[in-house]
Amino acid sequence: MSFDEPVGRAGIGSIKWDMTDMLGVTGEDVLPMWVADMDFESGPFIADALREVTETGFHGYFSTLPACYDAVAWWLETRHGWTVSTDCMNATHGIGNAIALCLDIFTAPGDPVAIMTPVYHEFTNKVRRNDREVRELPLAKDDNGLFALDFERWETLLTGAEKMLIISSPHNPAGRIWTAEEQVAIGDFCARHDLILLCDEIHHDLILPGNRHIPFPVAAPQHMDRTIMAMAASKTFNVAGGRTGFLIATDPSLQERITTRIRQFDIQPNRFGTEITRAAYSPAGAEWVDELTAYLAGNVSVFADGIAAIPGVSSMPMQSTYLAWVDFEALGMAHDEVVRRVHEDARIAPSPGPAFGTGGEHCMRFNLGTSRARVKDAVARLQKAFADVQ
Amino acid sequence: MSFDEPVGRAGIGSIKWDMTDMLGVTGEDVLPMWVADMDFESGPFIADALREVTETGFHGYFSTLPACYDAVAWWLETRHGWTVSTDCMNATHGIGNAIALCLDIFTAPGDPVAIMTPVYHEFTNKVRRNDREVRELPLAKDDNGLFALDFERWETLLTGAEKMLIISSPHNPAGRIWTAEEQVAIGDFCARHDLILLCDEIHHDLILPGNRHIPFPVAAPQHMDRTIMAMAASKTFNVAGGRTGFLIATDPSLQERITTRIRQFDIQPNRFGTEITRAAYSPAGAEWVDELTAYLAGNVSVFADGIAAIPGVSSMPMQSTYLAWVDFEALGMAHDEVVRRVHEDARIAPSPGPAFGTGGEHCMRFNLGTSRARVKDAVARLQKAFADVQ
Repeated sequence: MSFDEPVGRAGIGSIKWDMTDMLGVTGEDVLPMWVADMDFESGPFIADALREVTETGFHGYFSTLPACYDAVAWWLETRHGWTVSTDCMNATHGIGNAIALCLDIFTAPGDPVAIMTPVYHEFTNKVRRNDREVRELPLAKDDNGLFALDFERWETLLTGAEKMLIISSPHNPAGRIWTAEEQVAIGDFCARHDLILLCDEIHHDLILPGNRHIPFPVAAPQHMDRTIMAMAASKTFNVAGGRTGFLIATDPSLQERITTRIRQFDIQPNRFGTEITRAAYSPAGAEWVDELTAYLAGNVSVFADGIAAIPGVSSMPMQSTYLAWVDFEALGMAHDEVVRRVHEDARIAPSPGPAFGTGGEHCMRFNLGTSRARVKDAVARLQKAFADVQ
Repeated sequence: MSFDEPVGRAGIGSIKWDMTDMLGVTGEDVLPMWVADMDFESGPFIADALREVTETGFHGYFSTLPACYDAVAWWLETRHGWTVSTDCMNATHGIGNAIALCLDIFTAPGDPVAIMTPVYHEFTNKVRRNDREVRELPLAKDDNGLFALDFERWETLLTGAEKMLIISSPHNPAGRIWTAEEQVAIGDFCARHDLILLCDEIHHDLILPGNRHIPFPVAAPQHMDRTIMAMAASKTFNVAGGRTGFLIATDPSLQERITTRIRQFDIQPNRFGTEITRAAYSPAGAEWVDELTAYLAGNVSVFADGIAAIPGVSSMPMQSTYLAWVDFEALGMAHDEVVRRVHEDARIAPSPGPAFGTGGEHCMRFNLGTSRARVKDAVARLQKAFADVQ
């Protein structure tokens, strides 16, 4: 697998490449660095699985979901050191549907739902779309400029009406990995305030070499009575189009509530997402991910060095993911002008920071899941667009 | 396309072939005639569409849903004479999810929901799973032995608390096509009792030659203020594994309630089901369906003649679908013994009739979506199993 090979994105139905007009920036020269998928072909084992299903010619009611659950269990055990029964798993129509289901099951309209901002903008969108209230818990920064938990402040922000905390672990944006101790502290916080904890671990396989992520159920097993883990192969293997995710709850009562609601809505995964997931969570998939994260680490390094050369602009040090979080505040420039320069001068379409909530006002998220050459190009464009401040 | 070619079903993950143990009948000699998919390969245009997506190597966030909606609109216009804006459509995760969503949106727990029995067993299951009450409206039979509407009786069965009527149109089992006049009468009935009408038209393309189905929105446009149509390519093209269906409502208020709920649950179709649907609703797909229904008509005829030769057993005359409805009541035999003979002597696994509700007590549903040879084999087995009554 050569991640350096540019993948043709025109005419293959990619939102990231086709729809930058949603951000107000269009043109063939635009470098799209927003939507969180990568400009890499999915691994050959994915293609093989899809070919195999295609060539059977059979696309009726299928019996292979149990094999997919087995693959999830194998992956969690071999890659994450977590042994979990497939009885605790429910497939959903992707991670977004998984989060929405948990909101429906564990909260009621009007309930405040806590999130640690800045965070994946869809947390806020889903909470609001479901007529719940967003309770922002702003992240602090540690001495190294990484996101940090801020329980002391958060204690003062809760009203007592909150029913759930949704966390992104590792954190999107910037890929901060919460340590085992921090995860226990998050669990303790939820216990103190009687919150259901929805732990979105969709990025837990995109760990940059030299770092280690411990899944919540291993880090804080004592809090699994209130915790649901959401995961999917979609980010890791670039297969969001398969719309298949998982909710895993080891607590029988939580698990039963999820299963009941999923049956009520007749949520059954599709054959293709099922086979993709099964193919991904395999030895071949593991090897591919190791190659991928090594490559991404190179991209992250090139991007970090390039951004560091622009005075007043900083990219948060990354431990995982390909989603860089760039802060333009120290430029002292109006954010509108920052956006204009990035869009019009650099011709780059990143994700707008304010959508990530409090703490994102002066930021943008740059997707580095692309070829090294494109990352270098992006750096050069940004350096040029802000050349006058150097 | 040769529908005569037997399709190998072992090892390709088919519920129908792998899981007859759910019915209590197992063995390599068992002829599965239950789950409603067909033993035919999906058309070459389906395989081509899947190959095309596979070979892009791109499975991220995709932008091709609008093209799929366009194909649905084209199909409805050219095959059904119904011109409808794609703005009225919402994709769901298959028809089951579509029905479940409508129950969630338009009824509340405890509400009675009316269905015309005997009918597709999942109507009852979904209503009960969602803690609603099933209000059975038993179908009558006309002089030709076909299902008939029975409004006079039904008026006496409603309590006034009912919120919705779910119909299967054409009707599953047996494929009765409701005429335009009958559909208007159903709409009138719903209007009299202030019922939302959910019209499940999943079988509306499987019309046997010589018959004609008129979609509800064309037959009874005056009732579209309370009607939602559900449809999918899954039955027609044998692609239920793609889990993609549609809810279509032309009334802006109904449509908005559907759209809101679908967004709340983040229900977005998968790429494969999307591309399958787009490929199916095409000129090539239309040609394939015409060949398919001609072939199915031959199966229906062979089966009807064969069953007619068994005194006391009758198969309802069919106008559409491949789902024959066989009544064993006139045998005067205990139904347990009928089932034993079908399972153990004939070694056939049909769908149990009682699951279809009132009117199904003495019946079984036989899936004729298989090769002519297998239908002939089934007939011979049944004739032998009931030879002593001849």
